[in-house]
Amino acid sequence: MVQRKVYLDNSATTVVYCEIVKEMEKYFSEIYGNASSIHYFGRQANMVLDDARNKVALLLGSSPEEIFFTSCGTESNNIAITGILNAYKKKGHIITSSIEHHSVFYLCKHFEKNGYEVTYLDVNKNGIVSIEDFKKAVKDSTLLVTIMHANNEIGSIQPIEIIANELKKINDRKKNKIYFHTDVVQTAGKLRLDVEKLGVDLLSMSAHKFNGPKGVGGLYIKKGTHISPIIFGGHQENGLRPGTENIPAIFGFARAFEISNIKIEEQSERIYILREKLKKGILETIPEVVINGSGNKSISNILNVSFNYIEGEALLLMLSMKGIFVSTGSACASGGPSHVLSALGVNPIVAQGAIRFSFGYHNTAKEIDYVLSVLPDVVKNLRSMSSVWSRSQKKLQNF
Amino acid sequence: MVQRKVYLDNSATTVVYCEIVKEMEKYFSEIYGNASSIHYFGRQANMVLDDARNKVALLLGSSPEEIFFTSCGTESNNIAITGILNAYKKKGHIITSSIEHHSVFYLCKHFEKNGYEVTYLDVNKNGIVSIEDFKKAVKDSTLLVTIMHANNEIGSIQPIEIIANELKKINDRKKNKIYFHTDVVQTAGKLRLDVEKLGVDLLSMSAHKFNGPKGVGGLYIKKGTHISPIIFGGHQENGLRPGTENIPAIFGFARAFEISNIKIEEQSERIYILREKLKKGILETIPEVVINGSGNKSISNILNVSFNYIEGEALLLMLSMKGIFVSTGSACASGGPSHVLSALGVNPIVAQGAIRFSFGYHNTAKEIDYVLSVLPDVVKNLRSMSSVWSRSQKKLQNF
Repeated sequence: MVQRKVYLDNSATTVVYCEIVKEMEKYFSEIYGNASSIHYFGRQANMVLDDARNKVALLLGSSPEEIFFTSCGTESNNIAITGILNAYKKKGHIITSSIEHHSVFYLCKHFEKNGYEVTYLDVNKNGIVSIEDFKKAVKDSTLLVTIMHANNEIGSIQPIEIIANELKKINDRKKNKIYFHTDVVQTAGKLRLDVEKLGVDLLSMSAHKFNGPKGVGGLYIKKGTHISPIIFGGHQENGLRPGTENIPAIFGFARAFEISNIKIEEQSERIYILREKLKKGILETIPEVVINGSGNKSISNILNVSFNYIEGEALLLMLSMKGIFVSTGSACASGGPSHVLSALGVNPIVAQGAIRFSFGYHNTAKEIDYVLSVLPDVVKNLRSMSSVWSRSQKKLQNF
Repeated sequence: MVQRKVYLDNSATTVVYCEIVKEMEKYFSEIYGNASSIHYFGRQANMVLDDARNKVALLLGSSPEEIFFTSCGTESNNIAITGILNAYKKKGHIITSSIEHHSVFYLCKHFEKNGYEVTYLDVNKNGIVSIEDFKKAVKDSTLLVTIMHANNEIGSIQPIEIIANELKKINDRKKNKIYFHTDVVQTAGKLRLDVEKLGVDLLSMSAHKFNGPKGVGGLYIKKGTHISPIIFGGHQENGLRPGTENIPAIFGFARAFEISNIKIEEQSERIYILREKLKKGILETIPEVVINGSGNKSISNILNVSFNYIEGEALLLMLSMKGIFVSTGSACASGGPSHVLSALGVNPIVAQGAIRFSFGYHNTAKEIDYVLSVLPDVVKNLRSMSSVWSRSQKKLQNF
């Protein structure tokens, strides 16, 4: 019987802003035309599409022609990476980090199997790649750099601007440009983003991570970038993403991005205070915990904590029964140890006890109080069932 | 100033059933969890997903494990065709028809450019392929047959069951199976479909063509079919289609498919009467018209008519100003003559004057009366501006 609902899994997905749910309705039942139809009813839908594209472009500092709508963040990453690689007529080298989202990580593995060389840059214990490592990794055969903005499990923010700057210097000396793609799925709507400042050529987004609807992603592609489509059909999205335009979802994407951007500073600060409250509470009341990737350079809405001697999944399920919803890592993972925590050098046994708390705009201090009133006992109970914990405690007593 | 709204472009897209718009709401704002999250809130979303898959499977006569949700019909076609071809370790031969939807047609063109051989089967003047042609086209190197169920511009229905039967005989003598894919985007929810009876290995659907939401497609893949994913990432849809499951849309897909199936016979008959009323009215009141692909073997909701001596696009825009929304062909086309009408052998000049009227569940006899009260004058006016028309009329007078 699940009663109280404290949703702390906002990096997996978020609730849609209630005003958007209301506003989307008319695009299902009134202005439902096909945006590619040339009659008035189609043009009405097309105006919604244009308006959405303009809104997103304005917020990213790009021009509208550089914004493409896709079906999700995973597809945005796939179009960006496969699209760039296929546009080259030769195979080559890719640089990425060792802690990318599965849609980048497994795609790179796929290209590796198919004759491409991939460098997976190491990260330090805070989950950040080194600029020196990056510079050393670049080769004559390098075609593409794809490094995420903030990590989805630990929240660490990569120095995208600095990497872009270094890459620019390298590109100035090269004949063929090395493209730079970044996955901003975890930062869009949470940090102010400007494509010029970031200095990237491609950038992937997903609406359902910033309180927009599921089933719609965004992709910024800098003018002049050579890219091939990965699916074929109609002329939609300038031929890069065929298929009838999903107007309600695209409208929802733009509105959610707009609302989130208006609230960025206020929410970011509020959520940071909630996260620190939870962190402090955990550290004060529960022994043998490790904060994973706890550097200053992380987004404010993710807290990844290992509770030693217990399984993260068991803890997750116990919390779920108390109406607290968290995750062990990425919702896209199908079990097994997290490749992100492994890359940080977290001991596999410690990594097994990892829990990701991820905060959203609706979370309150009261909810954190509730979590802190429940969590210590749940951890204690689980540890009492753990033979490893009992042994470790006996050892302590024997000292 | 557009006033009256008579929407006769239902093959481009449809309104979402109003009960579904209401029902979807809670999946945006209440049961919004990530279906891959293992906590209770994620499992709630997962149950919606399971339920949708079961519903669709039941209606198609398949097992739930054979149903995959995608982001649209175009993507379903691309996953089916590219997925099958990539799973083979060698290039080979594809058989398709000359009147496929752009998402199949241009995909086949793409494979042709990349070393595959493609046979585009001719169609007769009613838009139907010949079984003999099909049998002759099969080669040792044939890997895949992809032929649509009903055409999106003229509504002609292909003899899928007979082709499947012939292919079965051929496969019985072969070592490597030739797979059979069909695009049922225009027949799902309009004809009763049973994958066993159809005898296909793969079948593509799109919700927004049967009064479900945009941004969600379906794909039936027969158990045992060798298929590779075309995008990479999480484990969703058994790894074939990664990306957070779009629960509101998937729910909407299944519900719309269910509602449409309940109403199939009733609606099909009702719509057939409306179409015949419009056809009869046009033939009685407007000279020099040609019904394109007018065989008995066509779905009841499409009427494709050429109004000689005028441009379809001009007629479309004039009708739009009267609040009547139709199309010249596929909404996915970016202009130029229709490859479908060309394949039927329609004279290019006649094809230029083609209009597709496509009916939906909400259309009424009153609306058809309105169209028939407007159309003859609009055609007359446009022809009065056409020099070709004036010349043809003078010729008649000179006889």
